[in-house]
Parts: sequence; C-alpha cells; structure tokens
Amino acid sequence: MSILIKNVLHQNRRVDVLIKDGRFEKIAPDTEAPADKLIDGSDKAIVPAFYNTHCHAAMSILRGYGDDKPLFAWLREDIWPVEARLTPDDVYVASRLAILEMIKSGTVFFADMYFYGEETMRAVKEMGIRAAVSLVEMDMFDPEQTKSKMATTERFLAADNPCPERIVKGLSCHAVYTVSSELLAFAARTAEENGLTMQIHLSETAGENAECLEKYGVTPTERLDSFGLLTPRTTLAHAVHLNRRDVEIIGERGSFLSHNPVSNLKLNSGLFAFEDLYHRLPGKVTIGTDGASSNNNLSMIESVKFASLAAKCQADSAVAGKAADVFRAATSNGAAAFRLNAGEIREGASADCLLVDLNNPFMVPAYNLVSDLVYAADSSSIADVICNGRLVMEDRRVEGEAEIVAEARKLAEKIINLK
Amino acid sequence: MSILIKNVLHQNRRVDVLIKDGRFEKIAPDTEAPADKLIDGSDKAIVPAFYNTHCHAAMSILRGYGDDKPLFAWLREDIWPVEARLTPDDVYVASRLAILEMIKSGTVFFADMYFYGEETMRAVKEMGIRAAVSLVEMDMFDPEQTKSKMATTERFLAADNPCPERIVKGLSCHAVYTVSSELLAFAARTAEENGLTMQIHLSETAGENAECLEKYGVTPTERLDSFGLLTPRTTLAHAVHLNRRDVEIIGERGSFLSHNPVSNLKLNSGLFAFEDLYHRLPGKVTIGTDGASSNNNLSMIESVKFASLAAKCQADSAVAGKAADVFRAATSNGAAAFRLNAGEIREGASADCLLVDLNNPFMVPAYNLVSDLVYAADSSSIADVICNGRLVMEDRRVEGEAEIVAEARKLAEKIINLK
Repeated sequence: MSILIKNVLHQNRRVDVLIKDGRFEKIAPDTEAPADKLIDGSDKAIVPAFYNTHCHAAMSILRGYGDDKPLFAWLREDIWPVEARLTPDDVYVASRLAILEMIKSGTVFFADMYFYGEETMRAVKEMGIRAAVSLVEMDMFDPEQTKSKMATTERFLAADNPCPERIVKGLSCHAVYTVSSELLAFAARTAEENGLTMQIHLSETAGENAECLEKYGVTPTERLDSFGLLTPRTTLAHAVHLNRRDVEIIGERGSFLSHNPVSNLKLNSGLFAFEDLYHRLPGKVTIGTDGASSNNNLSMIESVKFASLAAKCQADSAVAGKAADVFRAATSNGAAAFRLNAGEIREGASADCLLVDLNNPFMVPAYNLVSDLVYAADSSSIADVICNGRLVMEDRRVEGEAEIVAEARKLAEKIINLK
Repeated sequence: MSILIKNVLHQNRRVDVLIKDGRFEKIAPDTEAPADKLIDGSDKAIVPAFYNTHCHAAMSILRGYGDDKPLFAWLREDIWPVEARLTPDDVYVASRLAILEMIKSGTVFFADMYFYGEETMRAVKEMGIRAAVSLVEMDMFDPEQTKSKMATTERFLAADNPCPERIVKGLSCHAVYTVSSELLAFAARTAEENGLTMQIHLSETAGENAECLEKYGVTPTERLDSFGLLTPRTTLAHAVHLNRRDVEIIGERGSFLSHNPVSNLKLNSGLFAFEDLYHRLPGKVTIGTDGASSNNNLSMIESVKFASLAAKCQADSAVAGKAADVFRAATSNGAAAFRLNAGEIREGASADCLLVDLNNPFMVPAYNLVSDLVYAADSSSIADVICNGRLVMEDRRVEGEAEIVAEARKLAEKIINLK
C-alpha cells in the first residue's frame, strides 16, 4: 500500500510525504507519484508517533476497578483475584480495547509484559500496530512456579510469530522481589542466546530497594547486573530510586529506562529524576504508560505532559523536563530501545506517524508545535495514525471500534460477577 | 428552549432528564413531555460540567509563546511586551478561542481576570457559557496607575452587563506584590458596597511570601485580611504557601481557594496541600486552569487528573486526592464559589451538564464513572455540553468553530510581527 500526503506541515515547512512498502520513500515539496491513498495535509502537521515502552495492555479491562486504595490492599483484594481467573480469550478482548485506546491517542508501539502473550500478539496483528510482547517471569520463589514459567516461556518463544514485521517477542522479569535467582539466570541466558529485548521493573519504590539491600546486600540494579540482565537490549521500567552507582552501571551497560510518570504519581512511588537521567544517559530515557490499573489510561500524549511537569517538580526548576526532551523520549528514544528503525519522520525510516489536526483548538495559534503537543494537546488533537505505512486511524475512526467496545463490556460484566 | 434526554445514565441508573427554562425540571425514569430537542442518551452518562475558578482567558493567544524559560525572563521578554500592545478586539478574538477550548473540554463557567473585560463579556455572551469577569487591579505602586485603574474599574462596573443571566461582573486584585494599599482598599470597598465576587492571586510562590513578610511583617493572607479582602465572596488563586494561621483566617472568613495544579507544576511554584485543605475547609477548595501561558490549555478534564496526582505526591499518600474529592472541587464547589445554583444534576438547579460518550475507549469498561472521568477521560470523552439549558456543543461540534480558529490564527500572525 502506498500513501501520498500532500502539503503537510513538517518541521516548519510544507512538504509532500510519499509512503511506500512501509517506509517513508520521499519527503519533499511538490512530490508527484501514483499512490493508493491520497491525503490532503493542508490542515495538518506530520509528527512522529508515540512508542510506549512499558505496558500491561490487557489490564485495560481493570480500569477503575478498585481505585484510591493503598497499593497492597488493592492488589490483594481487587487485582490478583481477578487476574488469576482471566482466560486467554479474555486477554485477547482486553488487549484489543487497550490497542484501540492507544491508537486513538497516537501510540503505534507498546512493550507488553503480561501473560497469554499469544493472545496479545493476535490482537496486535489484527489491529495493525507494533509491539514487543513478553510473558512476565515471576515465580514468588516457589520452585514449582519456576519450572512452570520456564516451560511456558520456552513454548511461547518456540511458537510461530504471527506477524514478525510488526511484533517482536521479548522477555521480561517482574522484579527482584518476585523472581528467584534461578529464574533470573534463565531469563538472562535465554535473552542472550536469542538476542531478545528484556523488560524489568526496577527500583519502583523505596521499599523494593530496602528489601533488596537487606536480603542480598546490594541494590536492585546491582543484583540484576550480577545476572547479566543489564544489556543494551534491556529496558528498566520505573527506575525511580537509583543511586549514583546504579546510574553508572546502567550507563556502562547501555540499558534503557522507561519512565512511567502517571503510574509513579498515582501509586505515589516517588519522582523519577528525568532531568538528570535524560542528560546523564543520552538517548536512553523513554516513556511508558504502565497498565490501565495504575494510570488509568494508555495515552502517551497525556503522559508526556505529566513527564514534563513531574520533571520540573523533581528538579525544582521550571526549565527542567523541556517539551522537546520529553517528546524525544516518547518517540525516537522509545523506538530505539526496541531496535526499531522508526520514531522520526525521515526518508528510509519505517512509516509510523501522526497527522495532527491544526484546527483543533488546543493546537491554535501554533507558535511551537512541540510545545503544543506536549503541553496543550490531548487525543482529540490527533486526526490520523499511520503505522508501518498503513492508516490505522483515519479522521479519528478505527476499524472495528464498536465491536471492540461491546466485547470489552461483556467481559467486564463477567469480571463483576467473578468477585 | 426545552430539552428531553431519554434513557441517560445518572448515578448508576437510567433516567430521562427534562430541561426547561434553563433548569433541570424533572429527573426520573419514563418522563414524557414535549420538548424542542430530543436527545437519545442510551450510550451516554449525564454528569456535572466543570467550573473553572481561575483563568486569564485571552492568554490563549499566547499559548506556547516562549515556553521552558525561567518565569521572569519569560514575562519580561515574551509576555508583557505583547500584552501591552493587545487591542480590545484582540482580547475578544483570543477570548473566543479560549471559550471554544473550554466548551470542548467540558467547562461551562470561568472566573476571568484580565483587561478589556467588555470584550471578554461579548465573547461569553455569544458563545453561550457563563463567566465571572473582572478587570485585574494592578498598579505596581505607581500613583498614576492607581488612579487610572480605579477609573477604568468604575466605568466597567457602571456599564450595562450584556448578559446578566450568565455573566457576573466581579473584581480582582493581582497580588500583594503588585497592588498598592490604596488600590487594595478601593477594591475591598467597591466589592463590599456592590456585593461583588473577588479574585486574588495568593501565596503562589515562596518568594511572594518572603517579600511580603519583609516589607509588611505579615503573610500575604494577613495583609489581604487587614484590608477586609477575605470574605465568603472571595476566591484565592494558587494558595500554595499557606501556614497554619493563614488557613485558620481563610476558614474563619469563609473564602474559597482556587487550586491550579497544572500551572503550579509548570512554573514550579510548589505543591498545593489539596488533601489537607480539602478537609480543613469543607466545600471551599475549587479548581482552575490558570491562563494558557502557564498551563498551556484550559482543559478542566485534564486538570482534575493533575489535581489528584499532585495531591498524592504532596501528601505522600496514594489515597490522597481521591477522584470523588477532586471532581467535587471542580464542579459543585466551583459553582458555589461564584454563587451559582449549579454544579450538580438535580431538579431546580441551573441546567449545566455534560453528556459523556460511554463508547469512548477511555470510558470502557465503566466500573466507576467518577474514577474514569478523573483518571482516564480526556476531552474526546465528552459528547455534548449543555449550559443554562442550551446545547453549546452537540456531538463535539461547536457553532462557529472554524471562524474562531481562523480569526485566532490571523491574530497570532500579528503578534509574531509585533515582536
């Protein structure tokens, strides 16, 4: 499929953009070429799409289920009992709802960490976006669980990938307080042997750090590093409570960080040191939404504003967390973390982009597009979403939307009856 | 005009809502009555609209103009030179853009503090929402300015109100560091004699407090109180740096607070003590957006999420800033601050409300409507807006939208050329 976008605003000038075979073929004024689809870009700007580097997509079905409770009461009373009874098909239905929401807010990729990954992949394949899908390794130090997790992971990795051009299979470990040494070693070995991307929750709370220091005498970063889990293919989610040495280790290993500003604030985990880390680990800070239980949406266009404003608070400076920096973290840095040739509007890159509606009131008067996107826009500002050269949202319409919502509602009724 | 909304979700049950003569006439299942307009509410919920208690509406035209700079450099280099050259008609054009944006994000009332208030009133009248409009009293301790401000204010108050059923004229003082004793006394006297609502920036920054203590030996709250400026008709904007005695004084006087969560974070003014103040001053904490230079949008549906999440950070507790509390602050408390019989969906109240689109992905699966509105929704979740019994947005369309945007763009070009 080829798309020609005529007269669209790109970095302060008007150009035509030709998309072919999933790539940006030409970006220049007055481009004439036959195309399957012609888009009038006169009232639009073309900007990179968002790359969500930390998500538990299927938790969309638990949105608003037990809010405003302390973390552990909420997990024990509300979340875990329900999650334990979700079927593979439930995960498929819930993942579709999550992907619908992500497309509508401008996201073309998410790094997922959940269970029944085959079902998440099925939803991603159908809906046309990208993902890195991994099963979460978590055994609670129970040897039976360890074995079972390893076997499940091996089956998942060995099975066919239904859509290799958009989906990468990866690995993930939950955290140092839920994963045994044996399972951490398995994950490190499996990732290394297969060159897989890896996601891990790291130093999300002060409590995690304290427990790790007491139990192992090292920080969570040091513990993961001792297993060889920190590589340039690793993305560390949250990373709120790092000390200077932790940051040095992460920098030496070339790992990425996934900052989850909304989740950190909602669960009161602490303030991520965006300004400092963005500059100390160039190109390595990315942004994620976390799952819809701790956010409660998957809107990256909302998360960039939280990232900027939380950065100002954390650094005690109104000029920290600059719009251009958080925008880069949410776009090209995120794509780089998962080894995608994407995240920028340039010839040769994968054709992922947003067409922003310049008539949307939040985007007027338009002195500074990046500032408007980060500080003013919301999902209503995004008109069209293109992923891998294909329109996945056109004039705010996503294919199959009504059916996805209806299925999710049916599943929610079942969940209420489970309780 | 009368409106009948059939089968709409209201507090967990389906009802019909009859709106007549600007009020909610009947809220009950199976209501049959002739109506000028029939709305099918099957896929919708009816909820209170937002009341924005602190705004500088016309600053919408300066959105994104000089972001990510230190406060005073930004004011001196970017904002003040432009503001000084805005004409009355510019304020009208910019206010229309602001009101368009407010309607689209569910706001039916704003308390404004700017200049050329006649022009703001003209825009409010035409666009069908409510406002409390005031000229900002600010003389920088210059006796010439003092006189001129008094005269301008007296003319503004004496002139006809173009739309008394939706617009209240009020008074406002900028802050203790920009207004002389003489002008503060004038404002207090004028408000008292005419029973006017009053807005004042209070203790926005630690610097304001320090300067006031040094200059006058009292806190900003104590200084304003000594002029009789704290009454039950007064709304104090920001109020980030209050001590225990300040809060007692405000409580005794019955004044309201306008919490501006986004502005406080963006300018790094500090964290408002939402949880504590919400409970110590029952019914008195309201929410505002501030102007589009320090936000950069006027979306209350975004501000409620920031209010909740900033409250959790400030109180160091994941259960502070509960969704229901911030939602009440943004709706009924805000209406009460400006003496409106509104802010709730109940028979006899002014017919202001939002119809929320329950098919919007952010609103699915819908276990808890208030939690979804505060933590998940954005402006795309709002289908219709009714103010004073009149539809001001229907299916996300606002009358005259294209023209308002075009006029704002023209004005922005002029502003760029002013620099």
